Amino acid sequence: MLTDHLTRQFAFVTEIDRLKSVLRQTDLIDGSRRENTAEHSWHVCVLAMALHEHAEAPRPDLDRVLRMLLLHDVVEIDAGDTFAYDTVGYEDKAEREAAAARRLFGLLPVEQGTAWRALWEEFEAGVTPEARFANAVDRLLPVVQNFAAGGGSWTRHGVARSQVLRRVEPVRDVSGTLWAYVAALLDRAVERGFLGDA
Amino acid sequence: MLTDHLTRQFAFVTEIDRLKSVLRQTDLIDGSRRENTAEHSWHVCVLAMALHEHAEAPRPDLDRVLRMLLLHDVVEIDAGDTFAYDTVGYEDKAEREAAAARRLFGLLPVEQGTAWRALWEEFEAGVTPEARFANAVDRLLPVVQNFAAGGGSWTRHGVARSQVLRRVEPVRDVSGTLWAYVAALLDRAVERGFLGDA
Repeated sequence: MLTDHLTRQFAFVTEIDRLKSVLRQTDLIDGSRRENTAEHSWHVCVLAMALHEHAEAPRPDLDRVLRMLLLHDVVEIDAGDTFAYDTVGYEDKAEREAAAARRLFGLLPVEQGTAWRALWEEFEAGVTPEARFANAVDRLLPVVQNFAAGGGSWTRHGVARSQVLRRVEPVRDVSGTLWAYVAALLDRAVERGFLGDA
Repeated sequence: MLTDHLTRQFAFVTEIDRLKSVLRQTDLIDGSRRENTAEHSWHVCVLAMALHEHAEAPRPDLDRVLRMLLLHDVVEIDAGDTFAYDTVGYEDKAEREAAAARRLFGLLPVEQGTAWRALWEEFEAGVTPEARFANAVDRLLPVVQNFAAGGGSWTRHGVARSQVLRRVEPVRDVSGTLWAYVAALLDRAVERGFLGDA
């Protein structure tokens, strides 16, 4: 029984290696290649650790945020990454991802798989303080990356400031301080020609 | 002041993007390329989450384990990855990594940088239950990957079972259950020719 339990845990850990081959629209800051979802998942966890102190009440529990972020994109193994500004891809995104969550978390021992899937669903629902903070940093990270890259995927896709502002709106809900900082950063991005002025 | 604080946090998050370009000896399980340290850091966190229930007393606090693992390899941005079975590279590893920790965590606001560097030092020292568990899963993950890959870096470097057993010895300290499972896995790896029988 315990052997079967461990075999299921190892099967899950083996399967999610594939997240390293799911490409996102964001490039590495040095422009050398597109980033993948596994390395993004690590990066966004560190961002959450760094910025957690700015989160306003009701203060999210950082540890639940990290567990959520470690798992939040695992579904992309089956469902792929949907670019933030792709309206067509978004149509059946929820359905594809729910099926992926059933299959992937179903590889784990039942109790663990159920708990992890619930954490993923909590992230998706975006209601709890943890889900809202996790979502905010997830939206914020590409801004940091594209700004540092001098445009990155913004330039490639001709994205305008108003689109990014809408996309990072969740930041406003979790921290006024962060929101002001990000808005100023986007102004600078427009000034420097990294982002369209619309 | 707060702007400077945030600027430092963003500078750190920007700088660590480079961890995505540090290559490890381990390949992706599908053999398509070597993995990088950023995606490894994510993977090992999920492994820690999955296996934490098997940790024996004194039970490590999983949340501290995760924070430690998110940061444990950041020093490789400056110090590079040292292959587990490379005895020459290990000679000045500690010194190179300590200098890297000073520079990298020094990018953060002072209080945060000090706390994060302490967490990294705790990992390196390997004494607390959290550091021991983090170290054990860090040693264990390449075993899962190489086994699933049918040899991977073991085959490429002609590694033998006795070397891997020594390398994963920290697993024995944190969980008898896990240790037994891993020892059996290595036996199977030898039977299948993934690993040398010595």
